[in-house]
Amino acid sequence: MAFWLNGEVREERTAIHIADRGFLLGDGVFETVLLVEGRPAFFSAHLRRMRAGAAALGIEETIDERELAHAVMELGRRNEADKGKAWARLTLTRGVGPRGLAIVKGELTPTLLVTVNRYAAPIDHGLAKVIVSKHCRNEHSLITRWKTLNYLDNILAKEEAVVAGADDAIMLNTARRVACASAANVFLVQGETLKTPPPEEGAMPGVVRGVVLEEAQKAGIAIEAAPVESKELYASALFLTNSLIGLRAAAKRGGRAPGAEASAIIAKLKSCYEEAMRADLEAFGAGL
Amino acid sequence: MAFWLNGEVREERTAIHIADRGFLLGDGVFETVLLVEGRPAFFSAHLRRMRAGAAALGIEETIDERELAHAVMELGRRNEADKGKAWARLTLTRGVGPRGLAIVKGELTPTLLVTVNRYAAPIDHGLAKVIVSKHCRNEHSLITRWKTLNYLDNILAKEEAVVAGADDAIMLNTARRVACASAANVFLVQGETLKTPPPEEGAMPGVVRGVVLEEAQKAGIAIEAAPVESKELYASALFLTNSLIGLRAAAKRGGRAPGAEASAIIAKLKSCYEEAMRADLEAFGAGL
Repeated sequence: MAFWLNGEVREERTAIHIADRGFLLGDGVFETVLLVEGRPAFFSAHLRRMRAGAAALGIEETIDERELAHAVMELGRRNEADKGKAWARLTLTRGVGPRGLAIVKGELTPTLLVTVNRYAAPIDHGLAKVIVSKHCRNEHSLITRWKTLNYLDNILAKEEAVVAGADDAIMLNTARRVACASAANVFLVQGETLKTPPPEEGAMPGVVRGVVLEEAQKAGIAIEAAPVESKELYASALFLTNSLIGLRAAAKRGGRAPGAEASAIIAKLKSCYEEAMRADLEAFGAGL
Repeated sequence: MAFWLNGEVREERTAIHIADRGFLLGDGVFETVLLVEGRPAFFSAHLRRMRAGAAALGIEETIDERELAHAVMELGRRNEADKGKAWARLTLTRGVGPRGLAIVKGELTPTLLVTVNRYAAPIDHGLAKVIVSKHCRNEHSLITRWKTLNYLDNILAKEEAVVAGADDAIMLNTARRVACASAANVFLVQGETLKTPPPEEGAMPGVVRGVVLEEAQKAGIAIEAAPVESKELYASALFLTNSLIGLRAAAKRGGRAPGAEASAIIAKLKSCYEEAMRADLEAFGAGL
């Protein structure tokens, strides 16, 4: 399986330095990107977020978007992941450094890794059963504002879901309000209004979340990016979003699937999202 | 520079797999251990904590303490780090896994890396100037209960200290009470009483912290492992502890160094700590 590391396509997978701060301290950010027929969806939006996260953490990257786009496509071809849907992961760390936490300016060259893979199993688009996790997100921390390599809280929440026989776990913040799921954003459909927690509540600023909010606005659907009390999860229809699943209807375990009205709104948003993705993929192709 | 990885002593430092969950998700724990004349100090205590952290995260390790002890000493010799003081780092990750957060039982073999190095610069034992960081620790999260690879909050706090011209930053928890410093525990000397926040407040359960509490008890010094309000930092003498610095007197930037009475208590504790370390190193030598 070929991958791309700091400008080179390689095959030998033991390739990360033992003093890389990504490995030693979780010091970095990443993106998971959907590939459709070998082309990355919402690639510019993913790169914007990765760069903004890097800037927030003070990681001095010099990413070339065009070079990365070509790397992703080349890996797609080489790894036979350019038919149907596949996924890419971009991992950016602060690089190899001396001992300790201090960021030694000028001594650190960031590490940028790109991998592209076919799916090991088909993506499940059925109703997602969710639980509410006991592991909480720190909405006061930059860790929850960006897609950083500090993923332990989310790993533990996901494991809690698996053990409970659920598909995912909704994480609350330290104020016990809704933040997001372990690997997805959470939307609530309340009547004809769409509601989702803002990043200040500990919600990852998801790329699909952003597209859905934009498309909802265009479609004239009322949006509230506002704090969500955990009890609202019981009274609302739910759906999850992330780059790999897109939009997926959800229900609390033992709860009911979204009703007819909410399902119609979710279906409408899903179709708008897919349309936006097609437009983005076309624009990506035209920009090559 | 030689290192030890999963049972083998090696030299080629690009040795970590690109799909190691330590690198991709910060999914692991670590220890930093002081070496004195090639022998690791409080080695059993460090391993106990690493194993307890791994158990809390569900990482199924099969660490052989004796094998690791010999690995540390061998690396000390090979890396000319067996004279005076040096440091070892043990890093344990969940290993190489498939995509996603889910922990696939039976498919993950943990990665265990040991490195040993001489100090690049002498350790500063002078008065530490500290600030109070704006980055806070989530006392509700397992990330702050164990020494995990999720170190971004601490990295940002340390950077804040560096930018402010301070040596370290004291981190508060989400309730705005004192947790610990970016890479040390915090003790307060209030009259003749020693006070330090408990792990439930977001304090890392430091190895030296444990030794100091034990030695203080033996020496008849009153101890309070209790929540510390941030305003107490202004009215108390402070010291920091970690494995590399041992005990180091501290003062808020612009504040005063510990007075005569507090300094005498810190000096007493420091001497008890050093005595305990000598005993531990002797016991380690006898157990070989």
